[in-house]
Parts: sequence; structure tokens; C-alpha cells
Amino acid sequence: MKELKERILKEGKNLGSGILKVDSFVNHQVDPMLMDACGREFARRFAHLGATKILTAEISGIAPALTTAIHLGLPVVYARKHKPITMPDQVYLTLAPSHTKGRMVELIVSPEYMANDEKILIIDDFLASGATILGLVRLAEASGSRVVGIGALIEKIFEGGRAALEPLGVPVESLACITKMEDGKIEFRE
Amino acid sequence: MKELKERILKEGKNLGSGILKVDSFVNHQVDPMLMDACGREFARRFAHLGATKILTAEISGIAPALTTAIHLGLPVVYARKHKPITMPDQVYLTLAPSHTKGRMVELIVSPEYMANDEKILIIDDFLASGATILGLVRLAEASGSRVVGIGALIEKIFEGGRAALEPLGVPVESLACITKMEDGKIEFRE
Repeated sequence: MKELKERILKEGKNLGSGILKVDSFVNHQVDPMLMDACGREFARRFAHLGATKILTAEISGIAPALTTAIHLGLPVVYARKHKPITMPDQVYLTLAPSHTKGRMVELIVSPEYMANDEKILIIDDFLASGATILGLVRLAEASGSRVVGIGALIEKIFEGGRAALEPLGVPVESLACITKMEDGKIEFRE
Repeated sequence: MKELKERILKEGKNLGSGILKVDSFVNHQVDPMLMDACGREFARRFAHLGATKILTAEISGIAPALTTAIHLGLPVVYARKHKPITMPDQVYLTLAPSHTKGRMVELIVSPEYMANDEKILIIDDFLASGATILGLVRLAEASGSRVVGIGALIEKIFEGGRAALEPLGVPVESLACITKMEDGKIEFRE
């Protein structure tokens, strides 16, 4: 998606070690118009799948998942990383390594909102190693639902996430696909 | 706002001790259409203030702040509770008591996105004691900006937040104002 790539080139910062700083428009400050356009684009690409619910992970997945949900007219669930007191005792819980935190984090979904037989569309901000998204897949499958598609705003193809998701046999779409982050530069796949 | 009140009456659960469970449409599962309608309503009520930026707190403030931002065409910043590695060393940081966590949490904003002289509109999911929102006010003021308005989806008027915000002398709007939560019931102000 041209608009997103241009914004990454303009404002994104390659901090080294594969870390891309996009917190001026994605995950601290959010550009709502860009996020709305990304949601519209995900909706266009995934409309044919007949998804019944969108699943993402707090915190930075919420914005793109919500705008996609608005354009598809579907409820969205964000997996929590800490169990709030409003959640029942029995939950779906899995662990996933956090790239930016350097440790495992919990991903928790209440069975109240992840019923049997949902067709789940997963939306997140980054597809890097795929570990967080695979965690969301496990939560969906634990509930008896199945994942029908996966979308990420930004894919870092050199971290292997796409290959890790391939066995699922579902469409994986990213709106900006980065092939290389070396010497402070950011290169996209055409 | 009628639509929100009806939804609270239908799906909200009074868990006692002033805790209202609305995680089927606000803060775990999100109804994007309702959230979009709430954003449109906030935009209508606050359009005259000339705000330049929206400020909220992760996690559950993100959805209503984002839809408000879409309708006002303004950038939104969500204060982080943990400093990510993409943030500079020098930040604006304050502490606020968390009602649902029973401890103090940090609220952190990068100076990169909270410049001098912004006119800040604060949007959050709940207005209870006002402690989180007062934390956001401190962050805005620390940066040399000023708060021009405050909006919450749900106000629990019996927890005194409105009185705590009054000295600020800015409009405070809530879309559903709860006067009483006793014996498992939820009562609204007309």
C-alpha cells in the first residue's frame, strides 16, 4: 500500500537489530486517517473470506484491527496481556515471546467472546517472526474456531514470519513488506 | 447517548464494588459500529474547541479515542504504561492509581509527540475517580500544552471524578452517566 510505504520511508526509523520505529503514526501517536485507509484496504482484501470476528493482540494491534472491523462490520476481540478482574476464572491463555520486551508475554482471551465455530481474521501491526500471530492462532483453535486470514500492516520478511504461518494454508496479507533493514536503510519489496 | 446506555443495560454487568463489566463491547471485545457512533458523538460535542490533538491512555482508551480522532481528523496519542524500546530516554512520565489493578501505574508520553502549545482533547473509556484523566492532564501540562476538553464513554458519577476535574474549567462530557450501582442494578441520570 503506497500511502503506508511512503509514510514509513518519511517517518520510520531503523533503530538497528531489526527494530523499526513507527511510533509517530502507528503505535504511540496514531494517524487516524492512515489507519482508516489501512482498515479499508484490509477489508477489501479479506471481504471474500466470510470472517465472523477479528482477533488482535493489545496494544498496538488495536488500532488497525478496529478500523478493519469498522469497514467489515465485524466485532473485534483484543487478546489481553494481563487478566483483568472483569474476566472469568477460566480463560484461553497462551504464551508468546515479545520481540521488543525480550521475554514471554501472556495472551488471554475470554471464552465469552471466542465461541465455537467462529471464522477468525487476525489483524496485527507487525508480522516479524510470527510468534505473536501464532499465539493468536492457538487461542482461536483452542476455542474451536478457525483462522481464515491474517493481515499485518508491516511485514519484516527477513524475520521469517510468513514461512512460519504457511502451514496454516490461509491468505497472509501485509500492506508494507520490508525486505531489508541494513545500515539504517529500509527497503521494500516492489 | 441512548445507544450506549441501552447497550450497558443489555450487556453490562455490575460486579459489585463499583466495577462495571462492559468487556463484550468496550474493552475486550469491541463493537466497532457502536464505538464509531461514540466517536462521532464526541466529535460533535467537542468540534468547537479547536483541539489539535487527542490524548488517551492505553489500553481501553484507544478505541474511543481513535474513532473520535477519525471524526475530528486529528492525531491521537496514547500514553504507554511501559516504556517501549523505541521511545527516547527522556519522556514525560506520571503515576496514576489503577482502579482495577489496585496499584500505581505509569503513564508515559514521548516529548516527540506532545509538543509545546497543543490544544489537547482527552478521551477515555471511563471517568470514575478521575485519577487516570488527571494523570493525562499532568502529562499535557508538563509539555507546555493545555487541555481544552475531556470526554469519557461511561461516567460513574458517584466516584467523584467530575468534581475532581472541575478546577480545570474545561467541558467534561460523558456519553452514559451512571448515578448508582447497587444490588446488581445500574441506574443512569436522565
